[in-house]
Amino acid sequence: MSQSVPKSLRILVAHGVNLDLLGKREPQIYGSEGLVDIEALLRKSSPSLAALVGLEPPELSFFQSNHEGVFLDKLSEAWDGALINAGAWTHTSLALADRLAGLALPFVEVHLSNLARREEFRHFSYSAPHAKGVCYGFGLGSYISGLAGLYFQLSSLKKS
Amino acid sequence: MSQSVPKSLRILVAHGVNLDLLGKREPQIYGSEGLVDIEALLRKSSPSLAALVGLEPPELSFFQSNHEGVFLDKLSEAWDGALINAGAWTHTSLALADRLAGLALPFVEVHLSNLARREEFRHFSYSAPHAKGVCYGFGLGSYISGLAGLYFQLSSLKKS
Amino acid sequence: MSQSVPKSLRILVAHGVNLDLLGKREPQIYGSEGLVDIEALLRKSSPSLAALVGLEPPELSFFQSNHEGVFLDKLSEAWDGALINAGAWTHTSLALADRLAGLALPFVEVHLSNLARREEFRHFSYSAPHAKGVCYGFGLGSYISGLAGLYFQLSSLKKS
Amino acid sequence: MSQSVPKSLRILVAHGVNLDLLGKREPQIYGSEGLVDIEALLRKSSPSLAALVGLEPPELSFFQSNHEGVFLDKLSEAWDGALINAGAWTHTSLALADRLAGLALPFVEVHLSNLARREEFRHFSYSAPHAKGVCYGFGLGSYISGLAGLYFQLSSLKKS
Amino acid sequence: MSQSVPKSLRILVAHGVNLDLLGKREPQIYGSEGLVDIEALLRKSSPSLAALVGLEPPELSFFQSNHEGVFLDKLSEAWDGALINAGAWTHTSLALADRLAGLALPFVEVHLSNLARREEFRHFSYSAPHAKGVCYGFGLGSYISGLAGLYFQLSSLKKS
Amino acid sequence: MSQSVPKSLRILVAHGVNLDLLGKREPQIYGSEGLVDIEALLRKSSPSLAALVGLEPPELSFFQSNHEGVFLDKLSEAWDGALINAGAWTHTSLALADRLAGLALPFVEVHLSNLARREEFRHFSYSAPHAKGVCYGFGLGSYISGLAGLYFQLSSLKKS
Amino acid sequence: MSQSVPKSLRILVAHGVNLDLLGKREPQIYGSEGLVDIEALLRKSSPSLAALVGLEPPELSFFQSNHEGVFLDKLSEAWDGALINAGAWTHTSLALADRLAGLALPFVEVHLSNLARREEFRHFSYSAPHAKGVCYGFGLGSYISGLAGLYFQLSSLKKS
Amino acid sequence: MSQSVPKSLRILVAHGVNLDLLGKREPQIYGSEGLVDIEALLRKSSPSLAALVGLEPPELSFFQSNHEGVFLDKLSEAWDGALINAGAWTHTSLALADRLAGLALPFVEVHLSNLARREEFRHFSYSAPHAKGVCYGFGLGSYISGLAGLYFQLSSLKKS
Amino acid sequence: MSQSVPKSLRILVAHGVNLDLLGKREPQIYGSEGLVDIEALLRKSSPSLAALVGLEPPELSFFQSNHEGVFLDKLSEAWDGALINAGAWTHTSLALADRLAGLALPFVEVHLSNLARREEFRHFSYSAPHAKGVCYGFGLGSYISGLAGLYFQLSSLKKS
Amino acid sequence: MSQSVPKSLRILVAHGVNLDLLGKREPQIYGSEGLVDIEALLRKSSPSLAALVGLEPPELSFFQSNHEGVFLDKLSEAWDGALINAGAWTHTSLALADRLAGLALPFVEVHLSNLARREEFRHFSYSAPHAKGVCYGFGLGSYISGLAGLYFQLSSLKKS
Amino acid sequence: MSQSVPKSLRILVAHGVNLDLLGKREPQIYGSEGLVDIEALLRKSSPSLAALVGLEPPELSFFQSNHEGVFLDKLSEAWDGALINAGAWTHTSLALADRLAGLALPFVEVHLSNLARREEFRHFSYSAPHAKGVCYGFGLGSYISGLAGLYFQLSSLKKS
Amino acid sequence: MSQSVPKSLRILVAHGVNLDLLGKREPQIYGSEGLVDIEALLRKSSPSLAALVGLEPPELSFFQSNHEGVFLDKLSEAWDGALINAGAWTHTSLALADRLAGLALPFVEVHLSNLARREEFRHFSYSAPHAKGVCYGFGLGSYISGLAGLYFQLSSLKKS
Repeated sequence: MSQSVPKSLRILVAHGVNLDLLGKREPQIYGSEGLVDIEALLRKSSPSLAALVGLEPPELSFFQSNHEGVFLDKLSEAWDGALINAGAWTHTSLALADRLAGLALPFVEVHLSNLARREEFRHFSYSAPHAKGVCYGFGLGSYISGLAGLYFQLSSLKKS
Repeated sequence: MSQSVPKSLRILVAHGVNLDLLGKREPQIYGSEGLVDIEALLRKSSPSLAALVGLEPPELSFFQSNHEGVFLDKLSEAWDGALINAGAWTHTSLALADRLAGLALPFVEVHLSNLARREEFRHFSYSAPHAKGVCYGFGLGSYISGLAGLYFQLSSLKKS
Repeated sequence: MSQSVPKSLRILVAHGVNLDLLGKREPQIYGSEGLVDIEALLRKSSPSLAALVGLEPPELSFFQSNHEGVFLDKLSEAWDGALINAGAWTHTSLALADRLAGLALPFVEVHLSNLARREEFRHFSYSAPHAKGVCYGFGLGSYISGLAGLYFQLSSLKKS
Repeated sequence: MSQSVPKSLRILVAHGVNLDLLGKREPQIYGSEGLVDIEALLRKSSPSLAALVGLEPPELSFFQSNHEGVFLDKLSEAWDGALINAGAWTHTSLALADRLAGLALPFVEVHLSNLARREEFRHFSYSAPHAKGVCYGFGLGSYISGLAGLYFQLSSLKKS
Repeated sequence: MSQSVPKSLRILVAHGVNLDLLGKREPQIYGSEGLVDIEALLRKSSPSLAALVGLEPPELSFFQSNHEGVFLDKLSEAWDGALINAGAWTHTSLALADRLAGLALPFVEVHLSNLARREEFRHFSYSAPHAKGVCYGFGLGSYISGLAGLYFQLSSLKKS
Repeated sequence: MSQSVPKSLRILVAHGVNLDLLGKREPQIYGSEGLVDIEALLRKSSPSLAALVGLEPPELSFFQSNHEGVFLDKLSEAWDGALINAGAWTHTSLALADRLAGLALPFVEVHLSNLARREEFRHFSYSAPHAKGVCYGFGLGSYISGLAGLYFQLSSLKKS
Repeated sequence: MSQSVPKSLRILVAHGVNLDLLGKREPQIYGSEGLVDIEALLRKSSPSLAALVGLEPPELSFFQSNHEGVFLDKLSEAWDGALINAGAWTHTSLALADRLAGLALPFVEVHLSNLARREEFRHFSYSAPHAKGVCYGFGLGSYISGLAGLYFQLSSLKKS
Repeated sequence: MSQSVPKSLRILVAHGVNLDLLGKREPQIYGSEGLVDIEALLRKSSPSLAALVGLEPPELSFFQSNHEGVFLDKLSEAWDGALINAGAWTHTSLALADRLAGLALPFVEVHLSNLARREEFRHFSYSAPHAKGVCYGFGLGSYISGLAGLYFQLSSLKKS
Repeated sequence: MSQSVPKSLRILVAHGVNLDLLGKREPQIYGSEGLVDIEALLRKSSPSLAALVGLEPPELSFFQSNHEGVFLDKLSEAWDGALINAGAWTHTSLALADRLAGLALPFVEVHLSNLARREEFRHFSYSAPHAKGVCYGFGLGSYISGLAGLYFQLSSLKKS
Repeated sequence: MSQSVPKSLRILVAHGVNLDLLGKREPQIYGSEGLVDIEALLRKSSPSLAALVGLEPPELSFFQSNHEGVFLDKLSEAWDGALINAGAWTHTSLALADRLAGLALPFVEVHLSNLARREEFRHFSYSAPHAKGVCYGFGLGSYISGLAGLYFQLSSLKKS
Repeated sequence: MSQSVPKSLRILVAHGVNLDLLGKREPQIYGSEGLVDIEALLRKSSPSLAALVGLEPPELSFFQSNHEGVFLDKLSEAWDGALINAGAWTHTSLALADRLAGLALPFVEVHLSNLARREEFRHFSYSAPHAKGVCYGFGLGSYISGLAGLYFQLSSLKKS
Repeated sequence: MSQSVPKSLRILVAHGVNLDLLGKREPQIYGSEGLVDIEALLRKSSPSLAALVGLEPPELSFFQSNHEGVFLDKLSEAWDGALINAGAWTHTSLALADRLAGLALPFVEVHLSNLARREEFRHFSYSAPHAKGVCYGFGLGSYISGLAGLYFQLSSLKKS
């Protein structure tokens, strides 16, 4: 008689090093909005993006740290998926990439700026090969874009 | 008294070389779905993605060509934005990138596969620096992801 | 009682960009013979090369174009195998290589000149990794050499 | 008794990919004048540049295409010399360079912008080694400069 | 009355280092057939390949060594042509390439596997620039292909 | 009543290191004509090249030195423009390029030979990014070509 | 009547990873003096260096950490300027450089040893492009040198 | 009874190529002050910088040349130390670096601009490995910074 | 009469970033055994490996951290030797290598997988040049191998 | 009744080129002990290293040659495992690496010196990717280390 | 009473791979003279070259081999010095260079041709850093040149 | 009756930049002897080296300059041959190499030190490809070696 209620997916939105400065720092590159704006935007957009691919509204958790060890430990918690903007670590932390690969955590890599327009060393990402997908260059839109892609990957729309 | 009806945005979804083979070719890389599946998916998703950022439902046009000259000429038509998967031209056609830069056409670059996992020569894109954003690796989900990002960029949500 | 007649293999001999100039251009590199000489030589040699590996005489079709799009479309027709001299596209057209890989067309790559003696950028071929085999440096002999190899690959002599 | 009238030289002024956008696109790089301005300038300057080196006034033909195959075919017509701005193909089309070398067409390569100030990939030209000379950076002046050089090369002033 | 009998060409088929392992080693790369199979195949194919280009049936000699000095000395004997698969030496032995160049021995370089698909260091060959032609990737078919090309080069079909 | 006479532009034609050898050295690369021929050619051509773009006949000064310091000091005199063939210094003297940039002297860089055909280290020029334009490969014609371009740049024909 | 007392500048002297070992480690490279010697030297020199450029004696704070996250957080406090020896992080931490750029903190980069004499990977600094100036190679003298430069930059002597 | 008067150190402040243009050239890079301002600043600062490390006031000599040979000869005079801004020669003159190494002259290398922000070829210095220390990026402050470091190195404060 | 008891050597077995995941992560690369298995194996093997080279049984301490700063601090404790698997830090942390060099701690570097078979960026180790020896590729056997080598180095068997 | 006696493993300890000089040559790099010392050390250590992982005492054979062909032939004999120090061939002999891969011989690569501290060309090993493990830098200890690792790999302790 | 007669120096003149072809091979590169001509020339020149630097006439031995192992073994005999033309091994045999370094044999490296004019891979020599000196480009004169240098090095004229 | 007296060859021994320091500078690299020792050595050795190859005793002139322009001009005088040690200019002065090539002056390049053991940038010589031969590494012996080679090249012993 009782029908099991489908459990919400637990999604981590993780910001790495220096993203605490967002909205205060170099607005010509990163825009004038900060982490709270990103959280607000995602909380607002998440239900309809989930609906678009037939998912129950997932549960979103937000996190930021400038301490790599803390960041790595956070990833080990039981997440169903993650949206990750690792900042500068993207380009220098093999440790982060190895952990993501090791945990087999389905994640999407996002960046605010268009990395292809910036310094050569920002064109390489240790983690991108392990990601379900990558979105960059849209400013805050990268998060919407990335969440849409993550939900698609986690939904039954994705084949093989 | 009369109120002007907001004109729909005209969006081009353009597929470049070899994407006529989609669904028939190397399914382990590109999946088993073809251009018609992409069109169906986008037509279905477009209204709610537009609504998410407060846009009127845009008008979508689909196009594919293996002839670079034909593809370049197509871009000159009066589009408000474009979602472009240029296939192999992404990595070899400076002509395409120059045209996109020259036309100042707001476009998003999408790829089905995760380029970061493939041959070195697919890690470089001539056009990416000119894009409003880039999405890759989600399979068909890259198109949803890209359209979400494009609409965000064309909407009033984008600041500065 | 009736026995099915074995159907001839349909083989495309495709020449890419600038090979219309063959015999007129830089004879010190490419020799003084043109496309008609190649066709004559192959029509004459094909039956005995086929016999050597136990194949019925295949049906040969000849084609040349300076238009990449036209060339790519031609490859999609129903061929059993191909002998391809793509000229300069060999070294610059990822599109061609992707199409050959996508179509899974058994092909042999041939070049008239000894590429290893020429400019560095002619030492790399986008398509060679997808070929059944590669022959270069023999002048017109590269076509005999390549056809012999193609027939071997299409014959039952080839194991595993 | 009759004296043969010296035949005018037939000169092709050929513009490659994206130069249809000239005057509309990125004026900070390419200036605000278009193909018609170039044609007007050259028609006006040609007689005195020819006179300077003792040539009869050559006959100028103008051509532009975004289709590489069409462009390549155009070069095979019977020209005595050519002034070529191939745009992006300069840096990516080995096919164009091979054709120019193969046709042994005396040509001058021109560019509007100062390539040495731009992206690394615009510093290399496939065709320059085959040119009679190269002029770049003068804006529209590159065409006057290039035509002066071409006429010098075609005149009897040139020795050895 | 007496007519001089045309002397048969003396052809060396030389296998270099590790090819004694052929058929025993890494069949997924090199196939399951060994040197005796290559000898049998070539002895069977040689007459008709020679006939194809109007040559008398050449005399074939087979040789293998893992000792570079022995291999180099062997090449100095009086051969009219050679079919050489030098194995790993192809990529590391400048000594072999220098000797082939020094002896001015007409030779064809063959490889069983498709080198373009393998490690970067197998894409370079010291000897290829000195070869009459190169064939690779066809498995055993490379030898047929190479012999066809060698005979073409040694025949009167080859011009200048 | 009195009308100010337009002052002639003062143009320096400067030859750098080793150009004293011109006409005596490597004629297969640089031709058999020397500095006096260049001076004669430019004095003859200058008036009509100036007229072509509506300039008063400029005043030409010629200079050559093998001493870098002397050459650098010469550039500081009050010139309105310069035509510079710096010879080998083009490729090795950052000091020369810095001085040209520092003086903001409008100059055109010319070379007799086609640098794109020569050693790799002649493909790079320290000074080219600071030039109004560059002409090379025409032999003596490079000077006519360069002067035409320089006058165009100094004339009122140049826009923006 | 009351006159506002000019507030002292707050200057951070920050030592990064491994500098806790200073004076104990590899004296042939780094000398035998430790952090306390540096503090003593700077406290002694600061007043006269400030006076030299007309600054009030600044207030100096000293800090060292081997924990990157702790180091990054420290930089966010309200400093008027900083003298930073980041040790190995200089060459590997894009995160540190991004933070310095993001905080727009006027800082001077100092190193004890002459980096130009050491391993290639110590020749590159992520942070140097963001510094007001860089001093290295003087041993403890680098700190005096760096402080002198920092005070100059913070003083009114600096123009434009 | 008589006590020997300590002899003043003889210090050369040497400016290399193009620094005669200082204050006239590219003020956005080098500032608007010239060599006389540097001389004034150093003459004013020298006594207190010397006092700081316990040195008698040294005797300063100023020198500039655009002639490398003259500059090299100048260095051979009997100096106790030098402050050198060699301009472009820093990056191209191995001769200068060899002479400095050969003379074993204690010198400090200074640059006005932040080289780490400029062209790649300004990131390398032939002479830096031979310097007692290097200061750059502070504008005129680099000279104060460098002189402070030089005096430290020449003083008895420096150990080992 | 009393004889001093030889003090046991204090050996640190340190695991760096992500090695907490061992046994749970990518078993096809790292095997299915975890840190406890390594500890058990080493505790069991240590006495006989020590005996082999004439050492008293050393005292083993085990440690793992994902926090670089914590890891670096740990190394400063009073160890007689260390067996270190730093994981990803091996390839990116110059800080770790500098500390090991600075502490002059006799250590052996071990890796489970055969790094020579993996990505290019795992072929370089910052710390290896400072190690007493390096062992990799044996899976858990690397620890036995490394401990044997470490004991050899710490024993009197080692000469010079 | 009779029980089969377990057969000893046959292990080859092979030294390549120049290792005949060991103990006589460059003791500062390779130490003062020679091949006989290595043999003695291994014969003494082998039984307990085997016991450690539960193996019967293997039978050790020692071999050295400066002749590559002789060395390659030796490897084809029926060994159960090998400990190989190939000297300079490690870095230049693709032939050796191919043979080891082809024979599928379980081998461990050892080097006396710490290759990571030496010339760049000694950082690359053709054979390492095919080894069961690699040990270097321990001097003679590398052999103990390597033998321990080899026995581990050949024992039943190794899983998966 | 008896005075010991000064023993002649024993000098090896060693030719490596392919030099048996000298005089028969590529005369445009290596000249038309063979090993016997070199021996004759050196036997004739040796006494006066020795006298020039005050040496007793040395005893010359000549040797050539295409077998690397044989060549390496030859070097171990008791020579006082050697003149070595190793041919292609110069550029590929680290084994040869290691042996020369290991034996500490005073040797001079000679080459007939001017290596700086040939392929890039002939610009590098493994052995040159270990040589007493290097001579190349003089044809047979390289041997006279090299012997003069070798005798100078072995004589008492050489200081420090 | 009268017989023309063979004119002596005029030989220039030219030393470039910094060689005025020879004997005073870095004796561990260049030895303790100076230019006068070289002159004495060559004057003493020249007659017998000339006699060795059948030349009349040439007339030697010695020259040194730190001024490139002066050095270049010197080369234009009427020399029959030259022995050139250009010091640092060898590696940086394309101007010198171009002049030597342009003058077609038969010259030998000598260096005191063994360049192959020094910095990478000393391994390249602009002038070596134009030299009759190159000798380096023998200390003062390089001059004897080089003169012997130069005389051989100028004598009738040289063929072809």
